[in-house]
Amino acid sequence: MDSHPDSSTPDASASKDAAKVTIADVARQAGVSKGLVSFALNDRPGVSAETRARILSVAGLLGWTPSLRARSLSSQRSFALGLVIARDPEVLGSDPFFTSFIAGVETILAPEGLALVLSVVPDEKTELATYRTLVADGRVDGVFLSDLRRDDARIPCLTELGLPTVTLGRPDQPSPFPAVSIDDTQGIAESVRHLSSLGHRRIAHVAGSAAMLHGRRRRDAFTQAMQAAGLGQGQVVETDFSIAAGADATRRLLRQAEPPTAIVFANDPMAIAGIGVAQELGVRVPDDLSITGFDDIEFARYVYPALTTVGATPMVWGRAAASTLLGLIRTGSAEDVELPAARLIVRGSASAPPPY
Amino acid sequence: MDSHPDSSTPDASASKDAAKVTIADVARQAGVSKGLVSFALNDRPGVSAETRARILSVAGLLGWTPSLRARSLSSQRSFALGLVIARDPEVLGSDPFFTSFIAGVETILAPEGLALVLSVVPDEKTELATYRTLVADGRVDGVFLSDLRRDDARIPCLTELGLPTVTLGRPDQPSPFPAVSIDDTQGIAESVRHLSSLGHRRIAHVAGSAAMLHGRRRRDAFTQAMQAAGLGQGQVVETDFSIAAGADATRRLLRQAEPPTAIVFANDPMAIAGIGVAQELGVRVPDDLSITGFDDIEFARYVYPALTTVGATPMVWGRAAASTLLGLIRTGSAEDVELPAARLIVRGSASAPPPY
Repeated sequence: MDSHPDSSTPDASASKDAAKVTIADVARQAGVSKGLVSFALNDRPGVSAETRARILSVAGLLGWTPSLRARSLSSQRSFALGLVIARDPEVLGSDPFFTSFIAGVETILAPEGLALVLSVVPDEKTELATYRTLVADGRVDGVFLSDLRRDDARIPCLTELGLPTVTLGRPDQPSPFPAVSIDDTQGIAESVRHLSSLGHRRIAHVAGSAAMLHGRRRRDAFTQAMQAAGLGQGQVVETDFSIAAGADATRRLLRQAEPPTAIVFANDPMAIAGIGVAQELGVRVPDDLSITGFDDIEFARYVYPALTTVGATPMVWGRAAASTLLGLIRTGSAEDVELPAARLIVRGSASAPPPY
Repeated sequence: MDSHPDSSTPDASASKDAAKVTIADVARQAGVSKGLVSFALNDRPGVSAETRARILSVAGLLGWTPSLRARSLSSQRSFALGLVIARDPEVLGSDPFFTSFIAGVETILAPEGLALVLSVVPDEKTELATYRTLVADGRVDGVFLSDLRRDDARIPCLTELGLPTVTLGRPDQPSPFPAVSIDDTQGIAESVRHLSSLGHRRIAHVAGSAAMLHGRRRRDAFTQAMQAAGLGQGQVVETDFSIAAGADATRRLLRQAEPPTAIVFANDPMAIAGIGVAQELGVRVPDDLSITGFDDIEFARYVYPALTTVGATPMVWGRAAASTLLGLIRTGSAEDVELPAARLIVRGSASAPPPY
């Protein structure tokens, strides 16, 4: 490795106009060759982490950043990651999960000078076309694949395109991509056990869409936990994960001749709507009806009663997914990451069932 | 204008492999010259809207899209817009405003094949550096400027950079950029008049940050409306717009010897936290305490009591801002847009004050 300690002495170049700083100045200050500066900036192999950090630090100190054009020409990279979300814009606006996930991604990208290219599309067909355009345009170096579906058409599409991809969760089909996953079944099972130990027998589940793997997985975890507790299968109402559908499902469940004494919701927005519907109908939460959610969005702590829910830490997930995708792009391979399982957070929205 | 109706007869090229379709095929099918196809695709002046629509439709039918590289080389454009948000990622995650705004922007960008480049940065210094990098890298053709501040340093920065910009709201300083605005003072004034007409006299305001123009503007609107109603200035607590700060402010207001009988909140997340805090303290909403919000996020309709709030329609705002910015980029100028004023939406969280 090049090293010229003599030339690392601070000199006048440290204070000169940043616009006039060149790669040669950075190399001299860092005590390395210009080639090594270029290698470090383009994440090529063969530069030690320590040297890379020194070079970046000197570049930062001198106010020098290579132009994207120069970086792209020398590396054939776009220095951007992509996230395509196929959801109704209205539904998306009410689900804080993605905002938190994106915020987590940005905490990794921003310090590296990388951009996030975001697309919101109405359906899967448009989503597939969007990936093809992103690749044809060389607009991103890799993408995050979220909301995995059963037999997901995006996996073969992205495989064929050869676009580095990280899936959020494990697909139900062969996939060449690293998965960053969080076990959400344990938190649902804990919710059922918690309610069962409080004395609940009639527990219902307001599920998400069965077309999405996480909707199906949470539903299966609910049914299994109910059976393990000797409570049968438990009543399940399927929804599209939207607030409106969560409110409707709650209304339907509570209007039955023998309504449940507890409801396990597949996400927090629906659970918060569930608390609202119960209060509107004069059903006290948690005295008459216990409610649990999933995600631990910030609202969960501030509604009353505060929501007993499962902490899915979307910001942590965003950070882990971004680090994994960058590793995959830089080295050509990345391991699956299993985040700590989402666990039950006990607050005020679940208690013993009414005595009648 | 070129026009060759004879050559527009459908032929075998309509069904051939999209990968082999060329600009010549599109020109032949559309009955125009190749140059006009290129002009239409690059939004150059001199192509009628009708012809442009026909060319785009034929291109879509044939499955032809010019590569971004080809478009960029011929037009020096990046075909992406930028949004840089300087907020704590945690706070951002709990404010559905931006997700809805972005969803509105995407409804305009997606059909045109344009991308949104999103950056979340921790502070203003990083934000200014990010704009410089976006320009140096040629990564975006224009940006949205949100969360305007007093004497905002971003206006001179973006002016100097010559980056097409649309401001959300009108800056309090000279600005060369078109503004897409929504009058939020009228909704605050209506909230105060509504509460006053219900009989409230002690009305407080939980304000947003005074460093942000909309925080300051809503606060001034509150004070003016209070004075106009003969109710003095009204108590004001300043916050940073976060849910947590909204909850704290509510707690502080309600613990006073003579608490307000109504609170006007500067956004919905804080108002929803306010309902939660009141219920936790055994203060009934709206019987003991009336509450109003601002934004009309989807949660507002689903909490109980449903939130009386001001409808700011962030999706509509996003659509208008995107259209204006595209117009500015394509023609070099754009007019200010004034959206319909945000109006009060009466739901269940405000009623007459208690009789004592």
